[in-house]
Amino acid sequence: MFILNETHDPARRSWIETANRAGSDFPIQNLPFCMFYRAGQVARPGVAIGDTILDLVEAAELNLLGEHIGPTLHDCIGTGLNSLMRLDRGILSNLRKQLSNLLSASGGEGEGHRERLLVRRDDVALCLPAAIGAFTDFFTSLHHTERGGRVTRPDNPVPPNFRYMPIAYNSRASSVRVSGEGVRRPNGQWRKEDGTVQFGPTEALDFELELGAFVGKGNELGSPIPIGSAEDHIFGYCLLNDWSARDIQRWESFPLGPFLSKSLSTSISPFVVTSEALAPFRVAALKRPDGDPAPLPYLHCDSDQRLGGIDLSMEALIQTAKMRDSNEPPFRVTRTNFKEMYWTVAQMLAHHTSNGCNLAAGDLIGSGTASGSADESRACLSEIAAGGRPVDLPNGESRVWLHDGDVVVFRARAERDGCVSIGFGECQGRVLQARA
Amino acid sequence: MFILNETHDPARRSWIETANRAGSDFPIQNLPFCMFYRAGQVARPGVAIGDTILDLVEAAELNLLGEHIGPTLHDCIGTGLNSLMRLDRGILSNLRKQLSNLLSASGGEGEGHRERLLVRRDDVALCLPAAIGAFTDFFTSLHHTERGGRVTRPDNPVPPNFRYMPIAYNSRASSVRVSGEGVRRPNGQWRKEDGTVQFGPTEALDFELELGAFVGKGNELGSPIPIGSAEDHIFGYCLLNDWSARDIQRWESFPLGPFLSKSLSTSISPFVVTSEALAPFRVAALKRPDGDPAPLPYLHCDSDQRLGGIDLSMEALIQTAKMRDSNEPPFRVTRTNFKEMYWTVAQMLAHHTSNGCNLAAGDLIGSGTASGSADESRACLSEIAAGGRPVDLPNGESRVWLHDGDVVVFRARAERDGCVSIGFGECQGRVLQARA
Repeated sequence: MFILNETHDPARRSWIETANRAGSDFPIQNLPFCMFYRAGQVARPGVAIGDTILDLVEAAELNLLGEHIGPTLHDCIGTGLNSLMRLDRGILSNLRKQLSNLLSASGGEGEGHRERLLVRRDDVALCLPAAIGAFTDFFTSLHHTERGGRVTRPDNPVPPNFRYMPIAYNSRASSVRVSGEGVRRPNGQWRKEDGTVQFGPTEALDFELELGAFVGKGNELGSPIPIGSAEDHIFGYCLLNDWSARDIQRWESFPLGPFLSKSLSTSISPFVVTSEALAPFRVAALKRPDGDPAPLPYLHCDSDQRLGGIDLSMEALIQTAKMRDSNEPPFRVTRTNFKEMYWTVAQMLAHHTSNGCNLAAGDLIGSGTASGSADESRACLSEIAAGGRPVDLPNGESRVWLHDGDVVVFRARAERDGCVSIGFGECQGRVLQARA
Repeated sequence: MFILNETHDPARRSWIETANRAGSDFPIQNLPFCMFYRAGQVARPGVAIGDTILDLVEAAELNLLGEHIGPTLHDCIGTGLNSLMRLDRGILSNLRKQLSNLLSASGGEGEGHRERLLVRRDDVALCLPAAIGAFTDFFTSLHHTERGGRVTRPDNPVPPNFRYMPIAYNSRASSVRVSGEGVRRPNGQWRKEDGTVQFGPTEALDFELELGAFVGKGNELGSPIPIGSAEDHIFGYCLLNDWSARDIQRWESFPLGPFLSKSLSTSISPFVVTSEALAPFRVAALKRPDGDPAPLPYLHCDSDQRLGGIDLSMEALIQTAKMRDSNEPPFRVTRTNFKEMYWTVAQMLAHHTSNGCNLAAGDLIGSGTASGSADESRACLSEIAAGGRPVDLPNGESRVWLHDGDVVVFRARAERDGCVSIGFGECQGRVLQARA
């Protein structure tokens, strides 16, 4: 785990005023990375601060980031943050210090180069933060598992392996898209209640509120990452909407798991909040319910038990086309917290590589639907509406599944007494009509 | 489908004598692509012919392959055949004609440049033919499905969706390795018969004999590939060993499908036999058993029904360490034919993209275990030994599962009266001891 240092100092403020506003997602204590581009130009690496983005390549060219980081940042141009992600933690930690000092209100050198270094976030477009080589989706909420299982396996809702391993499947990396891109309702095959099998637009499109983790330094095939060092291999985090077509999923998933019900598209937020920025918000791993088995040795280490959790509140909101037309804001349908997850991210990574499977910088790990124990923390529509209770929206509309034109918005925020809270920005996507 | 032309002419012979030998895998009618390198050099694209490899970059530099292909072949250096794979079929077909003419015994221009163009296959190393962006594994043999299902679901061995769709899952691309690389026995978690859950080296390591298909031209997210043009998106084929740890697989797969039981490693043969080379060996799609549903319209077209099958005999052989020590050759344990598959490759591709999922050049599609109806065509050990009958080897050894030191060899050959038969080369791998 990272040690807290001056970059986490709650007293530190930036010469960029919007970063100091209460409730800003991007105060100087955050410094998440992204890839951005100006119209007609190629994407380049940046850091979000207040309502602006710091151009990392310009900062390196001005020699503001130390001697050695320039070539790495150049490698990112037009490709993604992968080269940065695979650096050693010590180097990344130094870069964070340099950036924090540069942007600090107490003598930060950057201010004199404001014009060259900064772009307004509204003046640029954001793209996927990395070239995603692989996308693995886990299943880490006991509550999501249990609520889902009650429908299909009422006698035994939690699969027997769930308490022994962080279950996962390989999902599709090629269809991961950045927040803001439309999500086309997929066509697909499923069996109707009368037993006929048909092909057409899904009638059960859902969102899944998840945390995404980007792998930093990878491992070689045949060399597992031990639980004790798994944290060192996580570069940072984003929000992830694992759009799911439930009718297609139900029909296709046995025996090989979800496939086309997921690969229609996956949305992620453009900002990668680093592991180091989240250090003040780490908490103990979830205390397992009495009677649950202890994690096997390859999934257990003291530091992970002590600090493997993340106290991160997450929410999902829906805004229908009608709400947009009448300027009603998105309505919150879920509020949950990542600290309620059954498995830690380090456990996921240790399990993933326990057979020798090789991960690489830029690989994306999804947590699975981050539902908590409370009703309000059900983090997908299939959980919310499972009891036949649709989501009631303030304008009188209601939803069992998503309609065309609906926008789903995710937000997340880490807060703690004595700390400056940090946010993730938004992950959002609008449902588009199916292809004819 | 490709039209037969002079490159398929059975009378055509090469000035490379080893290509004309009866039983050669690589006669002038084949011309499979590969990536090879000389010691200390970077990998470059080549074509196998007899016991040599034609250096494509040299051929382009000598202006022997037409004007336009040079830059594409240069793009392949150090990366893989992806740039070649994504070319239009017309261009690929022209390249095949140029290569065939160049190597033809009747006045092929290449002979004068023999020294510069050719390397002996034994003098170079072969590597993965492409940068594999994604690896999808299907489940296309009814017989494999049925035999597997009899163990776990005796009343209903074939899942209800099997006859409606080519079932598939996303597998792991990063752990795909070229033939010849060792395969380390993975550690993993499973439940023993007494109910205890343990972590350790798999005790049920298996092979799966599959055909691999490389995607050529891809599609955009949201734009499905219709069944009628799906064939145009397949660049070519290889052999694929989907090594599987059955104990891990049984425990982890419910409900999200196989994961670590597969990502330990996947071996493929280094030569990509093009769709055009296989044109003479196309046959009708399998006639479905009476009473099976007709494919839904998105999975049906006349040309695919008429020529979607591939008459390709495939075999798996085992050579134990003891057999190697006493110079006994590998022993054949499986002989099957791809024409017995329930779904065609075009149906797999049309299904894969039916929800809009985007594929790209270099994506790898596995057929799933290619078992046929006959007992001798059971294409993995779990089918062969399911009745408690281990494989008896000629030296008195026997196998239920693979032992450390066992080498598994796959071969395949397309044969037809009036045609020169073509082969795939070998896909082989030796089982290495688990990590301590």
